[in-house]
Amino acid sequence: MEGGVEVFGFWPSPFSLRVELALKLKGIQYQYVEEDVLNQKSDLLVKYNPIYKKVPVLVHHGKPISESLVILEYIEETWKHSPILPQDCHEKALARFWAAYIDGKVVSALGKVCGSKGEVIEEAVEEAKEALEPLEKELKSNKFFGGEKIGFLDIVGILIAFWIPASEEALGIEMLTAHKFPNLIQWIEELANDNVVKELIPKKDDLVTHMKTVLGKN
Amino acid sequence: MEGGVEVFGFWPSPFSLRVELALKLKGIQYQYVEEDVLNQKSDLLVKYNPIYKKVPVLVHHGKPISESLVILEYIEETWKHSPILPQDCHEKALARFWAAYIDGKVVSALGKVCGSKGEVIEEAVEEAKEALEPLEKELKSNKFFGGEKIGFLDIVGILIAFWIPASEEALGIEMLTAHKFPNLIQWIEELANDNVVKELIPKKDDLVTHMKTVLGKN
Repeated sequence: MEGGVEVFGFWPSPFSLRVELALKLKGIQYQYVEEDVLNQKSDLLVKYNPIYKKVPVLVHHGKPISESLVILEYIEETWKHSPILPQDCHEKALARFWAAYIDGKVVSALGKVCGSKGEVIEEAVEEAKEALEPLEKELKSNKFFGGEKIGFLDIVGILIAFWIPASEEALGIEMLTAHKFPNLIQWIEELANDNVVKELIPKKDDLVTHMKTVLGKN
Repeated sequence: MEGGVEVFGFWPSPFSLRVELALKLKGIQYQYVEEDVLNQKSDLLVKYNPIYKKVPVLVHHGKPISESLVILEYIEETWKHSPILPQDCHEKALARFWAAYIDGKVVSALGKVCGSKGEVIEEAVEEAKEALEPLEKELKSNKFFGGEKIGFLDIVGILIAFWIPASEEALGIEMLTAHKFPNLIQWIEELANDNVVKELIPKKDDLVTHMKTVLGKN
């Protein structure tokens, strides 16, 4: 699809959803290719992302790009209208810092929660809450991390907004407690009310069922 | 130092050296603050980087930024002359992809090598070589990852160019074997011959002594 835009994704992946969300917020048409990453990755995916063999991959003008944060930066630079990153250099650096924080500390803490059983899971849940605390503070009472509009960090943060609640239900635990995370909970509501987000994010029930299956809880 | 540029670093840290190298390549004056990260971090460092309490921190106009890759992007956007990132969006995405690869796969593999003992170290060395292979291919016979000039990925890659040879000597192992990594070895020579790099990178003997001390090999 020379000249066109393709996204190789997996419907329950928050990482490929980031790429789709950024494209949709900018109104960029793309062709979505669903990858069966659990059973059989396509030859094209392996060709386009030989290092990680993972989604998402964005293909533009026939050239592939991997890793969701790298793809978001590419999207921002290629289609400059409706910017997702702040225009101020320092604000932009903060958005990148917190995005890397989510993909480091938060993802690693969630991985522990999902991989834990019995008593250990309580400990992992506490660690996850600790990892989320700085984001609760950073958000303050702003509507979005991006201010009045959904921005880079909100897009990266959909992992927190929709995948954490689904994993709470799948695992029968609570991470985003109302008294500890009022800002994040308000933010999730704002995100869920956004038309672009609403259309794109999988239904919670479907995510819960998927997580239960993957985690062997069904 | 309102309006000025400060770098909080630690002399044997390849991460703070990245920041210094980028500033020097762009000819930006800065004040360097050495942090005793092993024994006593300063209150300022903890204030400026409360999340990780680590170097490097760049302070510009009194505002701190942490994480070396985030700082490099800030430097590139704030001082646009002598760009370190490619101008083409796709090339830029590739430089960011490989930078993240170095800070993920390569750093993690080196961590294993430095933390291993006895027979296990051989396995860790093999893993590290595997992690380096894609970079050997990516470099091809180019002078630098940035082409004819030192760029973003060369700056990020100083970890490989100078810290791997030092750790090889400190641990009595070999990772960058001549027959497997001719491109990377040629690239290290090119980097070492660069006047800015030459002036900035610590002497190999000092790095080796430092590593031996930290790893308890002295």
